[in-house]
Amino acid sequence: MKAMPISQAFTLIESGPVVFVTTFDGVKNNIMTISWIMVMDFTPRFAMTTGPWNYSYHAIEYSKECVIAIPTVNLIDQVVGVGTCSGTDTDKFEKFGLTPMKGRHVGAPLIDECLANIECRVVDIVEKHNIVVLEGVEAYFDGDREEQRTLHAVGDGTFIVDGSRLDRREMMRSKLPQGF
Amino acid sequence: MKAMPISQAFTLIESGPVVFVTTFDGVKNNIMTISWIMVMDFTPRFAMTTGPWNYSYHAIEYSKECVIAIPTVNLIDQVVGVGTCSGTDTDKFEKFGLTPMKGRHVGAPLIDECLANIECRVVDIVEKHNIVVLEGVEAYFDGDREEQRTLHAVGDGTFIVDGSRLDRREMMRSKLPQGF
Repeated sequence: MKAMPISQAFTLIESGPVVFVTTFDGVKNNIMTISWIMVMDFTPRFAMTTGPWNYSYHAIEYSKECVIAIPTVNLIDQVVGVGTCSGTDTDKFEKFGLTPMKGRHVGAPLIDECLANIECRVVDIVEKHNIVVLEGVEAYFDGDREEQRTLHAVGDGTFIVDGSRLDRREMMRSKLPQGF
Repeated sequence: MKAMPISQAFTLIESGPVVFVTTFDGVKNNIMTISWIMVMDFTPRFAMTTGPWNYSYHAIEYSKECVIAIPTVNLIDQVVGVGTCSGTDTDKFEKFGLTPMKGRHVGAPLIDECLANIECRVVDIVEKHNIVVLEGVEAYFDGDREEQRTLHAVGDGTFIVDGSRLDRREMMRSKLPQGF
């Protein structure tokens, strides 16, 4: 998994894939499945809705760190599995055959099987709205793999797979950040 | 366009489509293209990143209302066009051939050409992070149309079109809100 420019990491989230968020609470690694997440700026900052009802929240609150990992379609059963059990009584890396990898900046692990990973620090927690504001500090992308289609959770138990890609770069030139 | 249960409207946003947001500032209608938006709960609440740099922001701040409209792939050039000009000097409904329709609860218009529309009220503006918190009050869905594929903005000038849909409703049963 190669480093990618952190200034382009927002493109991993903007299209709305369902993601894994990993944490390390000082003792053990955990994972949750999240689709309530958005880009906030090109730094990049991300906002994610979570709260005390998620076991991972306590690790985020305590460590002020996490990793956002982007699964592809072949991991759909891990996405659903991780999202329907709890780290209180489950080692989700072991149960779902996912491989934690050491990052460079945060204690939370990257996930080797994912298309991309973003190491993040917590910038703020807007408690009133259960919004965690994250700043990406390093991003990794596995460009060599064949399967690059991400998943979009609809929220009713179905998932949309990435289809074709349309190019409007020329029309959007005036609005794109530098580097594209 | 038929009403849909407001408790299911979060499914229109959770998968991460690029959306139009319409406003009415007391004098005229306007539209912006937004992909920095997420679900916050099943009420449903949504969070959207915007600020004074968007002309529409002033109408949102003033009226405390907007409509989220979901375009399908055939509207890609309207999505890009709306996102690359400003309401300061453009009537975007006229320029892009979009038809404003009166909603029931808010002054901002629905867009007739869109797959779905959600009338929203502003619940809060988290100024520190430029996050507008919205509550959906009524939703509409055009289930009769053939084209239902939405677009996902990558952020680099390309757009991913909805591909196939995978069903994991049984596996997710324990986590789905009532009604699915």
